[in-house]
Amino acid sequence: MSFPPIREELRGLQPYGAPQLDVPVQLNTNENPYGPSAACADDIAASVRAAALTLNRYPDREHVELRTALAAYLSRDTPHGVTTEQVWAANGSNEVMLQLLQAFGGPGRTAMSFAPTYSMYPEYARDTSTAWVQGRRADDFSLDLDAAREAIEREQPSVVLLPSPNNPTGTALPPEAVGLLCKAAGDGLVVVDEAYGEFRRAGVPSAVELLPTHRNLVVTRTMSKAFAAAGLRLGYLAADPAICDAIRVVRLPYHLSAVTQATALAALRHAPELLGKVDELRVERDATVSWLREQGLTVADSDANFALFGTFEDRHAVWQGLLDRGVLIREVGPDGWLRVSIGTPDEMMSFKQAMAETLQMEVGR
Amino acid sequence: MSFPPIREELRGLQPYGAPQLDVPVQLNTNENPYGPSAACADDIAASVRAAALTLNRYPDREHVELRTALAAYLSRDTPHGVTTEQVWAANGSNEVMLQLLQAFGGPGRTAMSFAPTYSMYPEYARDTSTAWVQGRRADDFSLDLDAAREAIEREQPSVVLLPSPNNPTGTALPPEAVGLLCKAAGDGLVVVDEAYGEFRRAGVPSAVELLPTHRNLVVTRTMSKAFAAAGLRLGYLAADPAICDAIRVVRLPYHLSAVTQATALAALRHAPELLGKVDELRVERDATVSWLREQGLTVADSDANFALFGTFEDRHAVWQGLLDRGVLIREVGPDGWLRVSIGTPDEMMSFKQAMAETLQMEVGR
Repeated sequence: MSFPPIREELRGLQPYGAPQLDVPVQLNTNENPYGPSAACADDIAASVRAAALTLNRYPDREHVELRTALAAYLSRDTPHGVTTEQVWAANGSNEVMLQLLQAFGGPGRTAMSFAPTYSMYPEYARDTSTAWVQGRRADDFSLDLDAAREAIEREQPSVVLLPSPNNPTGTALPPEAVGLLCKAAGDGLVVVDEAYGEFRRAGVPSAVELLPTHRNLVVTRTMSKAFAAAGLRLGYLAADPAICDAIRVVRLPYHLSAVTQATALAALRHAPELLGKVDELRVERDATVSWLREQGLTVADSDANFALFGTFEDRHAVWQGLLDRGVLIREVGPDGWLRVSIGTPDEMMSFKQAMAETLQMEVGR
Repeated sequence: MSFPPIREELRGLQPYGAPQLDVPVQLNTNENPYGPSAACADDIAASVRAAALTLNRYPDREHVELRTALAAYLSRDTPHGVTTEQVWAANGSNEVMLQLLQAFGGPGRTAMSFAPTYSMYPEYARDTSTAWVQGRRADDFSLDLDAAREAIEREQPSVVLLPSPNNPTGTALPPEAVGLLCKAAGDGLVVVDEAYGEFRRAGVPSAVELLPTHRNLVVTRTMSKAFAAAGLRLGYLAADPAICDAIRVVRLPYHLSAVTQATALAALRHAPELLGKVDELRVERDATVSWLREQGLTVADSDANFALFGTFEDRHAVWQGLLDRGVLIREVGPDGWLRVSIGTPDEMMSFKQAMAETLQMEVGR
């Protein structure tokens, strides 16, 4: 071993994460641009103050009150309702994913997704020593369901990760996909990652509806995006209670702090406010997609709060051109593409102006 | 695969964790019995309120301000000082340990400790597919340094986990142990887990002093115990910056929420208050150890905020006898032993009374 004795496959790797730069217009990590109101912040502070008075005690390991509130929130998306026993939460949906792969992946097992997709997925697999198999999406980033079904039947993954809408493309799964792929997976789990689910267009259902039909279905959500609480790090899932029981074996004890539980409960009480900008963001998204197309660019259809556009011979030059103008977007996705998060109307105006200037300089085309 | 497709080695296992029972006197999880003052809770609430106003944004992934404050706190324990670059924090020292084993353990590698010791260690190893080797402590729970050195040289673990004081026995390492075992480990890491470090008796040094001498030394701490903030879930380590860099590759992005960072910073500002009961708890510990010995019991010497005592033919009966009298302690450690956390003088009075009654009934002897 050489020092430090990091695993060979990790040596020299860069940590995951977008550059955290102090720039006026931040459109790079798909945050909701609208912060909580003073009233909401007051309520969060009051909740945390109450929790702080017994901060010397460990938190409720089962976070029952929070799971109950999350179940009530998810129940809006399904006529069947969601129970407390079906819900599990952790520090961000990435901890939920890690726990899923710790319990259901690992050495000798396979996790699978279809590229281009969320770039953390292979890291969860790597960090749990789970084999990683990646199918392909079609050129328009949709999923060829026949090909996907065949790939799942061939690879027999213990976990299939399917974001809907997909990140970084914004593509939602068609309504028939989830049932079909749950069947193809047999007893393997199908995790529909609805991190951006609340931004989906009218008529696109949530996979939460299908929980009673497919016991191997897991739907994950986060409070980071539509819920405007990226700083809270609260992700959660709904699934068969037996799946939650399996996660209990691998979760670290007391993984969710009393402060996190108190803040999340307060935020959920303010759901109407925090989610109140989702419709505006949807409108702004559709306008941004149209504007980019008017500039002659190709843009993926988006059900999320971001748009993937391209293609550029030198996308880094375009990214840099925007950054030079105070607008930070994300160099992510297939070669030649860039992703912009949907901000406020003012922020999108700045983006368009910076983009127009950068395109005029024929940078990167 | 059968449903749910949990890994075979996890099937049927019970989740880790002491029973969370609603009992008047809670002496089972080594919490500090003294909660924060109203002034401290106010300051935590004010910090969190400020953070909540930008809760829509992701937190500082590098938690620089918090690491700097923790470095300043650790610098009290060493004439060499500790820098921000040497510090890494996570959601509880158990997340720190998991990250260490993700980066430095894993398939084909070995982690090692000496039993009886903290019962989560083998779980960290299991959950990272790291081989687990356990040496033994002497009958008085001290570490035979020659035997330990030989075992480390033989097994060549990539990570050695050495709690000091040890949990559940309370045994501190002798001053010469850390240097000797760091040498024996070669380039493997030696993690000295000082979760209970602040409770050590006068004259027992912290391993933090030895960081400049041994680059393979990692010292972990937590705010859960002496710092009276178990509900916060904040663990941290000090080590060579190259070790922190390796952890960055496997940490989940934004693993520490803005709320956690704000709360921890406020708590650190109140360190004199929160740590203010450590001396009283030490006195109460020594009195508890003496009292138990006066009852004819064997008690391990303790540098922590708990005492391990025994031995009982039926320890469960004694545990139940105390519980029936409203006192919850922990059934943990070698067969026949029980562990009691040090509470307030009133709580320890209740414990002694319940204990005297239980012993009188000759339960479990």
